Amino acid sequence: MQIAILVYDGLTALDAIGPYEVLSHIPNVEIVFVATSSGNKKTDTKFLTLVAEKTLAEVPSPDVIIIPGGTIGTNNAAKDIHVLNWLKEVHQTTQWTTSVCTGALILGAAGILDGIEATTHWYARNALAQFGAKYVNARFVEQGKVLTAAGVSAGIDMALYLVGKIAGEDYAQQVQLILEYDPQPPFDSGSLSKAPAIFSELVCHRLTTYLQHELQAEFDSSIFANYKL
Amino acid sequence: MQIAILVYDGLTALDAIGPYEVLSHIPNVEIVFVATSSGNKKTDTKFLTLVAEKTLAEVPSPDVIIIPGGTIGTNNAAKDIHVLNWLKEVHQTTQWTTSVCTGALILGAAGILDGIEATTHWYARNALAQFGAKYVNARFVEQGKVLTAAGVSAGIDMALYLVGKIAGEDYAQQVQLILEYDPQPPFDSGSLSKAPAIFSELVCHRLTTYLQHELQAEFDSSIFANYKL
Repeated sequence: MQIAILVYDGLTALDAIGPYEVLSHIPNVEIVFVATSSGNKKTDTKFLTLVAEKTLAEVPSPDVIIIPGGTIGTNNAAKDIHVLNWLKEVHQTTQWTTSVCTGALILGAAGILDGIEATTHWYARNALAQFGAKYVNARFVEQGKVLTAAGVSAGIDMALYLVGKIAGEDYAQQVQLILEYDPQPPFDSGSLSKAPAIFSELVCHRLTTYLQHELQAEFDSSIFANYKL
Repeated sequence: MQIAILVYDGLTALDAIGPYEVLSHIPNVEIVFVATSSGNKKTDTKFLTLVAEKTLAEVPSPDVIIIPGGTIGTNNAAKDIHVLNWLKEVHQTTQWTTSVCTGALILGAAGILDGIEATTHWYARNALAQFGAKYVNARFVEQGKVLTAAGVSAGIDMALYLVGKIAGEDYAQQVQLILEYDPQPPFDSGSLSKAPAIFSELVCHRLTTYLQHELQAEFDSSIFANYKL
C-alpha cells in the first residue's frame, strides 16, 4: 500500500505529521511525501523544513492520499494547477482520499467535495460552500472513500480510524498503544462549543490579522474570502 | 524566547512535531531544530526527512529544550558525546528542560534525571532506573524545570501545559482552539491500563523484534537492555 502525503511551502506540519505517524504502522506500507517539485518545503511558521521526496508526477497512483492544510500555504496549493490536476487524476483510483484542516479546501478546489458533506478547521468552515460541499461540525467526516478531518490535531483521530479500516480495529488499537495516544489535554478548550466565546473571538481576530498580513492584497480574491466566522 | 528541538537520525517525528506545533504559537518565540551536525535527518520510519537548521554549537543558550525519542535513534543519540555535553551545558541555564517518549533516556544519559521522578514511553519504563530516575506512570511529570512526557502523542499535552506556564492559561486555551485539540480517538486503547493485555503483549513482541533487528548486536549492550516489559 502506497500512501502519498502532499507537502508545500506554508503547510501546517502537524496536519501532515500526525497522520503520517499513525499510518506508518500499517504493515508493509510505503509513505511518500510529494510536492509539485521535490526538495525542501518550509512550514507555515518558517521554523521547520520538511523534504518532499518525490514529485507528483513520480507518484501517479497512490492508494491513499493525505492533503494537509496550512494557515498561509493552503491558498497557493489550492491554486496550483499541478496539484489540482494530480488530485483529479489520482482520486479516480485511490482507496481513500483524505484531508486534514484546510486541506479540505484543496480537495474542494479540485472538485472532489462537490455535493458531499465535509469538514475542515472551524475557522474555515464557511469556505467549504463555494466548492459545493456541506460543512459538518465533526471530528472527521466519511463520505464513501472521502475522509475530511477538522483542524490540525484531528488528523490523528482520522488516521487511527483509517488504520482500523485498512488493517482492522484490533491492529488499530495496538497502534494507539504504540503511540500512547491516550490524550489528556490540560485544558478543555479545543472546539468552538467548548472554548469561551471571548477566546474564539480573540483567535479569529488573530488569524484574520495574520492571514491579511501574510497574503496581503491576495487575501480578498483568494479562496479565503469566506474564511471567517 | 528561544526553543531548541533536538533532531537526529532515527527520531520519531511526532515526538518533536507535536510540541513544535503547540509551542510555535507562543508570542515572539523562535524555534530552532538542532543537531550534532546540521542538515537532513531521516526519521525512524525512513519515509520522512526533517532538516536540522543549526548545529548544537550554534545554539548555546536556549530557554527551552525539547528532546524527542525514537524507536531506533534514541540509542545513538544517548551515546553521542556532543549531544550529552550540550545537554549538560545548556541545562544549566534553561527555563525548561523537557523530553518526549524515550527522549527521557537521552536526558537520563546526560545525568539530568538522577534522583528525580520522570516518565517515558511505557515500553521503556524499566530503562529509567539505570539513570537514577524513578518512573512515574503519568501523561507527563514536572520536577522543577524538568518536564518529561510519556510516549509519542503525550508531547502535545505536555507542550500545551508548557504554553500555559509560559504565556498563561488563557492564552494556552486559545492555542488549543487554534489546533482544534479536542481529541476524540475512535478507540480507547492508548495506555497499558486501557488496552487489552493481548494487545500490549503483541506490541511488546513487535517492538522487541524490531529493535533487535535494527540495532542487531548492539541491542544487548545498549541503554535498551532494560527496554522491556
